[in-house]
Amino acid sequence: MSLDAMRATNRIFEDEVVGRGDFAALDRVYTSSARILPPGAAMISGREPIRTFWKEAAAALQVKALRLVTLEAQREGDVIVEIGRAEVDTAAGPNALDLKYVVVWRQEDGAWRWHIDIWNANG
Amino acid sequence: MSLDAMRATNRIFEDEVVGRGDFAALDRVYTSSARILPPGAAMISGREPIRTFWKEAAAALQVKALRLVTLEAQREGDVIVEIGRAEVDTAAGPNALDLKYVVVWRQEDGAWRWHIDIWNANG
Repeated sequence: MSLDAMRATNRIFEDEVVGRGDFAALDRVYTSSARILPPGAAMISGREPIRTFWKEAAAALQVKALRLVTLEAQREGDVIVEIGRAEVDTAAGPNALDLKYVVVWRQEDGAWRWHIDIWNANG
Repeated sequence: MSLDAMRATNRIFEDEVVGRGDFAALDRVYTSSARILPPGAAMISGREPIRTFWKEAAAALQVKALRLVTLEAQREGDVIVEIGRAEVDTAAGPNALDLKYVVVWRQEDGAWRWHIDIWNANG
């Protein structure tokens, strides 16, 4: 397992992508062939469409901050399967969005990155 | 890979669980320690709570039929990671629900079963 490596990648998403609005940093979060499966939209493949999705979603929801919590992580062959929780602060208030997710991680360029990313709301 | 074994398990869900309303058949679909992550609810663990969830969901949505389509399946160590699509006919009409999902499969009692199951709507 590589919980420290996972934490480092999650921190890029929390601090650089959401915190500073640096969407180019998503290239160090997702693998080059990553897929995301957002609620209310079709599956999205590849880095540029994923960057566009997050840029638009962050703006539409006026996301202020986001915290990722790993609830479970299991290494299987070349991947890690993670179940986690995302708490999102938006213009509507702190913890306005309470999400759960499954991320399948894969190593690329010496780092563990998100390869398949699906989530939905808790309430 | 075990696409035939996956198809057999998916058919239990389509035909026995949804088709005939036999929720006990879910014990042959999910592993004994399975988790489901439904939209709009907290994560649910274990067979009895999973049976209760599907019974209530099928009744609430008046589900008539459901078709599962595997879009991608990759063996990793002891698991298979599947990305798929579910087309659901409800009282509102055919294909009233268009869902995508990620299922992490694991072998139990000689069969491939759903171990982690998360989904959301496409539109």
